[in-house]
Amino acid sequence: MNDVIKYDIAIIGSGPAGLSAAIYAARGGLKTVVFEKGIMGGQITVTQEVENYPGFHKTLSGFELMDEMKKHADKFNTDYREEEVKGIGLQGLCKVIETNKGMYHAKTLIFATGAHPRKLNVPGEDKFYGKGVSYCATCDGVFYRDKAVAVVGGGDSAVEEAIFLTRFVKKVYLIHRRDKLRAVQIIQERAFNNPKIEIIWDSEVQEVNGDDFVTSITIYNKKLEKRSKVPVDGIFIYAGILPNNEIIESRIELDEAGFVKVNEDMHTNVPGIYAAGDIVSKKLRQVITAAADGAIAAWSAEKWITYHEDDDDTTEFATCEIPQKK
Amino acid sequence: MNDVIKYDIAIIGSGPAGLSAAIYAARGGLKTVVFEKGIMGGQITVTQEVENYPGFHKTLSGFELMDEMKKHADKFNTDYREEEVKGIGLQGLCKVIETNKGMYHAKTLIFATGAHPRKLNVPGEDKFYGKGVSYCATCDGVFYRDKAVAVVGGGDSAVEEAIFLTRFVKKVYLIHRRDKLRAVQIIQERAFNNPKIEIIWDSEVQEVNGDDFVTSITIYNKKLEKRSKVPVDGIFIYAGILPNNEIIESRIELDEAGFVKVNEDMHTNVPGIYAAGDIVSKKLRQVITAAADGAIAAWSAEKWITYHEDDDDTTEFATCEIPQKK
Repeated sequence: MNDVIKYDIAIIGSGPAGLSAAIYAARGGLKTVVFEKGIMGGQITVTQEVENYPGFHKTLSGFELMDEMKKHADKFNTDYREEEVKGIGLQGLCKVIETNKGMYHAKTLIFATGAHPRKLNVPGEDKFYGKGVSYCATCDGVFYRDKAVAVVGGGDSAVEEAIFLTRFVKKVYLIHRRDKLRAVQIIQERAFNNPKIEIIWDSEVQEVNGDDFVTSITIYNKKLEKRSKVPVDGIFIYAGILPNNEIIESRIELDEAGFVKVNEDMHTNVPGIYAAGDIVSKKLRQVITAAADGAIAAWSAEKWITYHEDDDDTTEFATCEIPQKK
Repeated sequence: MNDVIKYDIAIIGSGPAGLSAAIYAARGGLKTVVFEKGIMGGQITVTQEVENYPGFHKTLSGFELMDEMKKHADKFNTDYREEEVKGIGLQGLCKVIETNKGMYHAKTLIFATGAHPRKLNVPGEDKFYGKGVSYCATCDGVFYRDKAVAVVGGGDSAVEEAIFLTRFVKKVYLIHRRDKLRAVQIIQERAFNNPKIEIIWDSEVQEVNGDDFVTSITIYNKKLEKRSKVPVDGIFIYAGILPNNEIIESRIELDEAGFVKVNEDMHTNVPGIYAAGDIVSKKLRQVITAAADGAIAAWSAEKWITYHEDDDDTTEFATCEIPQKK
């Protein structure tokens, strides 16, 4: 085991949470690694326009923003490994990380694996992503001023965001597959009373249509057994958000939807293991909140190491053979 | 009262928390105002080098960073008022804001008034701020690589940060006015066992000395009644952090130190009143965490308005005469 590379902190995922954690950890003097199995930057990199990361007032693409963060992490000598983490093990206080390329040891670990929206899986959904298809009204609503949009879903998020969108758009079609909404009563009433919102019941989206940009959606009314086209400039899909939790260590406590529970230090229930960003059980998932999570997690991890590192024999920690402290 | 200006959201303070809240609120279609009694940008503007706000990898001054955030808020038509808030009143759900120049109504309110470090109030402290005097090792520690620094204090923060600094510096003098530390036992032991840390007991800092930059501090040992000079390149002062809570509405719950308690939505115990940034009861106070707080508070405020705004008669809300909803 002598050739195992040992880190103070291992970060899984290179989105805003992971890279922010890396900036804080590496700048804080910790030996830091980021593992990324796919594309550097995470989910946000597929976003064409980011205009709400405070300080970047010139609209840039998600990829461009993450490229700036990556340069920032590189500045402080973060190790960046394009490897897929296959599993996590614990040996006392030490974390063992197995990837498709090797084995690593770390004193602390941050899961920054993110989340992704549940798709409708209909034709046109992927093609028009960022060109009329969105999963986040907070992010993209403002781009649809005085336009017509569809919102798909019937839960709190869908109905809240339909109402939110009426701050900008001229018309919202709220498309729900059942004949009643699941959202709480008061928010349903707000939607019913909002003159800009028209609810289309018992209907599913079958296709997203357009040229360069979305121009309409094809819906199917199950009760009437009727297909029709609704002219819209955009479609906001609220079919749920799914945590990327496949490699989350089994001892880590999750909420009902599979997101990681953390305390105010971003600490999970497992000592020395943190989570940050969209994978965390929380309400608002934005670049800025993910980046803050990452900073807090890295800062907390440094403090945790200070409290748990045995000054007499730090090598024990690093070789994953340190016994649990009393 | 007809000429009172009415806002959806009033933000008090224009630091990272306040401006981020403004970006999210104004971009989210809310009529937004920021009140600032002093210099735009808050506490961070006096910082010469910020290099840990993720994405800004080219080191910039606190003022420059906040100037970018101000431009960002301006882009979405935030009202910016250089007025001192004198008091806050509540009329049902509506907030009444009295400044040195007038009276305003708002549906929601965000306190982003910040905090400030307790100073030693010794000669040289202000003169060398940013030139060797710091109140934040997380922010500035990395600038003292292989140098000698003093840390002043004896609580958890002082001792933790003294240990943190040993990741960079060659020597830390921990200067404490008593003959024992207040920090928890385990962290005291870590400090005692750290070869880079020398504790100077029973001593107070009397002066910070230097030319362009700090070169030494003058300390006074109360037991020995002896004055001496300690050669250091920097001094980190941990005498406590104080909340700027003078105008916080009296019904708002504070922690023991006077910081505002909030839930995960940054909501205080008073409906529709939020807090964000350094004024919040929390551990890590950084630009990135303040900005995230602001985004969450603004997002939460928008949802709160949606839930509480009466669609039949929104004017009642705006004129501060709406009764509390059941």
